[in-house]
Amino acid sequence: MPPVTTTELSLDYTRTLVDAHMRALFTERRRQAAMIHDSYAAFWDHIAEVAVAGGKRIRPHLTMVGNGGFDERVLPVALAQEFIHIAMLVHDDIIDQDTMRHGVKNLTGRYIDSYSPHADPTRAHHYANSAALLGGDSLISEAYRLIETSDYPHDVRQKLSDQLATSIFEVIGGELLDVEAGFIIGVPYDPLTVYRYKTSSYSFIGPLLSGAYCAGADNDTLATLERFATNMGVAFQIQDDLLGVFGDEQQTGKSTTSDLREGKQTLLVRYHTELMTPEQHERFTWFGRQDATEEQLQAIKADLTSSGARQKTIDLAEYYFAAAHTNLAQLPSDARTAELTSLITQLEGRNV
Amino acid sequence: MPPVTTTELSLDYTRTLVDAHMRALFTERRRQAAMIHDSYAAFWDHIAEVAVAGGKRIRPHLTMVGNGGFDERVLPVALAQEFIHIAMLVHDDIIDQDTMRHGVKNLTGRYIDSYSPHADPTRAHHYANSAALLGGDSLISEAYRLIETSDYPHDVRQKLSDQLATSIFEVIGGELLDVEAGFIIGVPYDPLTVYRYKTSSYSFIGPLLSGAYCAGADNDTLATLERFATNMGVAFQIQDDLLGVFGDEQQTGKSTTSDLREGKQTLLVRYHTELMTPEQHERFTWFGRQDATEEQLQAIKADLTSSGARQKTIDLAEYYFAAAHTNLAQLPSDARTAELTSLITQLEGRNV
Repeated sequence: MPPVTTTELSLDYTRTLVDAHMRALFTERRRQAAMIHDSYAAFWDHIAEVAVAGGKRIRPHLTMVGNGGFDERVLPVALAQEFIHIAMLVHDDIIDQDTMRHGVKNLTGRYIDSYSPHADPTRAHHYANSAALLGGDSLISEAYRLIETSDYPHDVRQKLSDQLATSIFEVIGGELLDVEAGFIIGVPYDPLTVYRYKTSSYSFIGPLLSGAYCAGADNDTLATLERFATNMGVAFQIQDDLLGVFGDEQQTGKSTTSDLREGKQTLLVRYHTELMTPEQHERFTWFGRQDATEEQLQAIKADLTSSGARQKTIDLAEYYFAAAHTNLAQLPSDARTAELTSLITQLEGRNV
Repeated sequence: MPPVTTTELSLDYTRTLVDAHMRALFTERRRQAAMIHDSYAAFWDHIAEVAVAGGKRIRPHLTMVGNGGFDERVLPVALAQEFIHIAMLVHDDIIDQDTMRHGVKNLTGRYIDSYSPHADPTRAHHYANSAALLGGDSLISEAYRLIETSDYPHDVRQKLSDQLATSIFEVIGGELLDVEAGFIIGVPYDPLTVYRYKTSSYSFIGPLLSGAYCAGADNDTLATLERFATNMGVAFQIQDDLLGVFGDEQQTGKSTTSDLREGKQTLLVRYHTELMTPEQHERFTWFGRQDATEEQLQAIKADLTSSGARQKTIDLAEYYFAAAHTNLAQLPSDARTAELTSLITQLEGRNV
């Protein structure tokens, strides 16, 4: 691998590096698994295919940015962040009963194909979920293993491992709340709490701080980076809500009514329930119903704008983006700050 | 906590220490979780209840024995072994669709109670499994965290962490094979491979070697201990098969026909399929059928003896126990070897 300088740091370059490192690691695990049984080797093949099938690698990139640039040592630390992400997606798909991800079959979907000749559809699906469950477990373990084998002094590794544990602790809390908010009535679940713990924590704070630990950043810088990453993550998630309903279906690759049909408890929806008129309330009874017609969901979508919920949500996203910019202004002018400025500017303008 | 000497090392004493340490850790996690949401605090309460509800703590005890006795520092390392065990039981119960463990409700079972007022039975069960899935994930992460925060020099911690990763890699392989062996016809799955990877690895080898690393054992001792633990684990699992069918229901607390009804692919069953007569073969068609009568299963049970499968299985268990004793004879005469001799002698004579 050629030596690189910080000027070469880009999301594309990160993806190339991370994917290569990931493939090498999975090849090694496959080899070890084959000594146990061919079926276990196949398990690692499936995991490898799912892992390289999609993902922007924004988390590993944030780790490299946090480090102030790429170097060989930061790579396993960056990859650990991605493994936690993939593990959570695999387990989240079991919870959401999805068999697709990034437009291709996910781990459950691939195992349904493998197992279908051997069991009826219901059992094949259950066993496929079981294999996917074990797949997610493996990736959590591999994430810790990557940190442990990274070439940093012990005190740095300890911080990296603590940060990983915090990320996992927080994302599990966020995920649990997100699941419960979907069906438990009468218990208050603040969408912003879910965003903070389900998204900001392991997707932004953990990766960025981990990179900063690798670079030996001082406590003031770490504290500012944490505030920045929190704001960026929440802004990102609010934007996701908006794109899910008002985005361009061609660009996002998903229907703008699917979140409404699913009954996804977003901040946008929360605002709407606070602002809606009696007529809008009546139309909103079709929210979260599988038997709703496309017209009924389109009517709710129009109401989300006319109730003022959409604008209020846009305003809040802007508030968090502005807060993130304020955080950046407190950081020294260096390669890290420059790349973070570029990243957040790209995020603000995203339409996918 | 009073200082202890190796003479006080006993399974009861281990259980007291481990349970106290576990409760303290869960109290701390509950406190941190409560800062996120009351529902997340409740999640840690459920985990704590399940974790202390049962379990002989044989794995932490093996770690202490591997260390040659108890000291404060070995406790988190010992607890990490138990956490991997509990995590695997929680996920195994999801795979097996069980809601009970150790005679009480497991994590899924407890969450079914919590969620039932809020969702219909099918959805409540699914969400309960989802919470249990996240519970197992949390415990895998906590196991690594315990190793990382243990008070050993870096090179020891690295070995402990590697050993944990190996245990997880191997138990997941064993679990996958065990699941697949239950429904995939035509692919050879050797029960002994499953026993080696599903049982010996994380339940015997990992805990014992981890303790030995803490004590700074030399490579020869480590190699002998690994052979011993492998033999002990396989012997233990074969014995489990026998007790599952020929044990005293009063003592084991489970029906001696339940494994037969479930179609559990044990070594005992494997031998029987190799040895059975045509008449026995005909009766064996009721194996693994939910609609089999108690009489049909009792007939298979009798056949397991008359075919010679039972004796062949007993002989193999004895072979592994004898091999384990041979391993012990190669170890120095110290507190560790004495306690391992006592443990394996107890195991050989167990009827529960």
